Amino acid sequence: MAEVSQMIDSEVFLAFSTYATIVVLKMLLMGPMTGYYRMTRKAFSNPEDTAIRGRNEEDKKKFLRTDPDVERVRRCHQNDLENIVPFVVIGLLYALSGPALSTALLHFRVFVGSRFLHTVAYLLPLPQPCRGVSWIVGLLSTFSMGYRLLSTTLVL
Amino acid sequence: MAEVSQMIDSEVFLAFSTYATIVVLKMLLMGPMTGYYRMTRKAFSNPEDTAIRGRNEEDKKKFLRTDPDVERVRRCHQNDLENIVPFVVIGLLYALSGPALSTALLHFRVFVGSRFLHTVAYLLPLPQPCRGVSWIVGLLSTFSMGYRLLSTTLVL
Amino acid sequence: MAEVSQMIDSEVFLAFSTYATIVVLKMLLMGPMTGYYRMTRKAFSNPEDTAIRGRNEEDKKKFLRTDPDVERVRRCHQNDLENIVPFVVIGLLYALSGPALSTALLHFRVFVGSRFLHTVAYLLPLPQPCRGVSWIVGLLSTFSMGYRLLSTTLVL
Repeated sequence: MAEVSQMIDSEVFLAFSTYATIVVLKMLLMGPMTGYYRMTRKAFSNPEDTAIRGRNEEDKKKFLRTDPDVERVRRCHQNDLENIVPFVVIGLLYALSGPALSTALLHFRVFVGSRFLHTVAYLLPLPQPCRGVSWIVGLLSTFSMGYRLLSTTLVL
Repeated sequence: MAEVSQMIDSEVFLAFSTYATIVVLKMLLMGPMTGYYRMTRKAFSNPEDTAIRGRNEEDKKKFLRTDPDVERVRRCHQNDLENIVPFVVIGLLYALSGPALSTALLHFRVFVGSRFLHTVAYLLPLPQPCRGVSWIVGLLSTFSMGYRLLSTTLVL
Repeated sequence: MAEVSQMIDSEVFLAFSTYATIVVLKMLLMGPMTGYYRMTRKAFSNPEDTAIRGRNEEDKKKFLRTDPDVERVRRCHQNDLENIVPFVVIGLLYALSGPALSTALLHFRVFVGSRFLHTVAYLLPLPQPCRGVSWIVGLLSTFSMGYRLLSTTLVL
């Protein structure tokens, strides 16, 4: 990692930029999707939100509930936060540590692919172990980048 | 994005630094705020936390509960995580992609402003669609930066 | 922050890289740990997950439950997300703002140490205020870096 300032102009950094943007935008879309499910399933968590749908007080209280579909999207979103954020952090530092372009691309592609598969497997839902395997593949990609980072640059 | 190493010394990057720090510190303050509400509402989620407030065993069990105000702060904090983290990632890459200073400042200001408004609208709470609109304005700002990133730099 | 492009090749940036990678990998490990507790405690949140453990329909429904140990790991993971992500963002910008190496190392070490202590205190659990103090020490380290960032570089 002696030439970070050179790495930042490299193909690897541009590739990281692209894949990180795509996967973070995918994560961001889970928010509107939760909103959509809340609207169609009429399941809200804030009293002020029910005013849009409910006409009278009784209706409004009825809409303050949890719905299995809404909770599923929220769990998927939470899993994205727990996995995509570490990928972005470790991926950024990894991209600056001077890896070979082909190795870096492999890591980024496997991770982003596994997260899209994970979302599909979570939301349909596909039978297990589809979701489990796609989650673990993503984890392994991040751990592999983290391992390379710690083995090449260790300043404690 | 051919001159990332120049961009990192630019006004745009300094502006991103400032706005990202402000909005992340705002998000970080939601933690102590949750703690404050837990203390004053006497609503804890860990048995070991109730020891501070409860004198006897019965009291302690009574404090292991959820409180609507505490849950409201926690939902606001969660929404911050779901929206501010993508802003930081995409905003950083966007700041390095060489946008015009005025365009970049517009994006950063709109986003940070919308998140402060969102927090106020969530915690008071203001009637809808205050919170909804401020959430969507923040989303649009992030998506707009993401769109510009993907349209200028795409290495797949 | 006039010489960001020099800072990125500095010892401070390498140190940040190392500590950020370590603490993010620690956070990432909370995911498999949740999975382990879900398996051993037989407490799942998705119907499709119970198929691995349950033989018949009745068994499967029984496993769709919350377990205090699983919820504890999940709360610890959530607290990591809420604190480690802001540390990474502010720490990265701080590392590029040209601090003295010794000051930077102090911040990084205190934060990473406090988060490991926090996880141990949360999972055992240790009696309060162990967890509370380690949480606050981590917060203070991040706020201290944020303060220095805003006082040296403010472009609004």
